[in-house]
Amino acid sequence: MKRKGILIIISGFSGAGKGTLVKKLVEKYDGYALSISATTREPRPGEEDGREYFFLKKEEFERKIAENGLIEYACYCDNYYGTPRAYVEEQLEDGRDVILEIEIQGAHKVKQQYPDALTLFVMTPDAEELRYRLESRGTETAEVIEKRMQRAAKEAMGIEKYEYIVVNDNLEKCVDEVHRIIMAAHNAAHRNIEFIDNIRKELEGEV
Amino acid sequence: MKRKGILIIISGFSGAGKGTLVKKLVEKYDGYALSISATTREPRPGEEDGREYFFLKKEEFERKIAENGLIEYACYCDNYYGTPRAYVEEQLEDGRDVILEIEIQGAHKVKQQYPDALTLFVMTPDAEELRYRLESRGTETAEVIEKRMQRAAKEAMGIEKYEYIVVNDNLEKCVDEVHRIIMAAHNAAHRNIEFIDNIRKELEGEV
Repeated sequence: MKRKGILIIISGFSGAGKGTLVKKLVEKYDGYALSISATTREPRPGEEDGREYFFLKKEEFERKIAENGLIEYACYCDNYYGTPRAYVEEQLEDGRDVILEIEIQGAHKVKQQYPDALTLFVMTPDAEELRYRLESRGTETAEVIEKRMQRAAKEAMGIEKYEYIVVNDNLEKCVDEVHRIIMAAHNAAHRNIEFIDNIRKELEGEV
Repeated sequence: MKRKGILIIISGFSGAGKGTLVKKLVEKYDGYALSISATTREPRPGEEDGREYFFLKKEEFERKIAENGLIEYACYCDNYYGTPRAYVEEQLEDGRDVILEIEIQGAHKVKQQYPDALTLFVMTPDAEELRYRLESRGTETAEVIEKRMQRAAKEAMGIEKYEYIVVNDNLEKCVDEVHRIIMAAHNAAHRNIEFIDNIRKELEGEV
C-alpha cells in the first residue's frame, strides 16, 4: 500500500520555540518536507529564493491568489505572505509528511481545505516561562514583549481546536514527541480506509 | 500535572496475535496495567485467581452485575465473562494506562461508558495471512478455522469504529507502534483540558 503523506499544521505561542522544533524534526527524521511560504517582501541578506521563502512580485502573488494557487494567505505590513498549494500537494503525493508552521487564523483556513490535516499546538510549560524566553532573547523591547504576551493570551483561547498539544520544555524530547504523534497519525483508521476495504473484500472472498 | 491513565481497548481478528502483542507491550514498557476479566468458568490447571482471571461463583458474578461492578459482561457456553470496574478505575486513577483486550461487541459497550477510551484494532497484513496463522497453529479443526474466518469477515465490518489500526506483521515493530499510539494519545488536547485552562488563566493574569 502506498503511504500517503499527512499535512501537519504546527502553531504555538511566539516564544515557544516552534521554528527550532520544526527545523530539528526535519533534520532528525526522514520523510518530512517543510512547506515554504511565498512572500512579496524583499529578501534579507543571506535569504535565498526557494529556501527561506519564495520571493514573488506583487503581481505574481496576486495572480497566484486568483488561480487558487495558495492554500492560505494574509497581508502584514503591506506585504503578502502565503502557502503555495502546488509544493504541498506534490510532497504529500510523494508520501512525505508536510510540515506547515503557521499562526492560528491561517491554520483554521488550511484545516477547512484539508480536513485530514493533523493539528498541533506548541506550548511552554507555563506563562512565566513564555515571558522568560521572550525576555531572554534580549532583542525585543518591553512593549513588544507585552504585545506578544497579549497575543499568546488571545491565541490560548483557540488551543482546543488543535488535536494535539506538546509542551516544549526540552527540545530533544519535544521533537521525539512530535514525531511520535505524526507516526501514530498514520495508524488512524480514517487514514487507512483503502487498506481496511481491501482486507474486507479478501475476507468476503475467503469465506 | 498528574498524569491520568488512559483506558485502551484492543480488539482484532482472532489469529492476529492480540494476546502476545499485549503481553509483550506490558513486559517491554512501564506504566501499563492489564485488565483482568472475571469469569464463572472453572480454573484450568495452572491458572491462578487474579492472574489469568478472577474466578467467581455464579452468585458472586450476578451480584457484581446487580451492583454495576462490571464494565461489560457476556455469557458464553453457560459461563459469564466480564470486566470488573474497580480494578480498571483504580489503575487509571494511579496514572496507569489500562489495556483491555476485548471483542468488538464488548468494546462498543466499554466505549459508551468511557468515551475517552482509546480504541485499537489489530489486523494481519491480509486475509491469506490470517488463514495461514490459524492453520499453522495446528490445533484447530478445518471447521473451527472456517468459523474464525467467517467471524473475521463479520468483525471487519466494524473496524472503522476503532480510532487506530495496527498491522501485526512483525511483533516487535507492532508492539512499538501500539506504544507510540498510546503515548501520542496522552498529547491529545481533549485529554489536557486542565493544563490548557491553567496556562490560559496564567496568561490572563500576566497581561
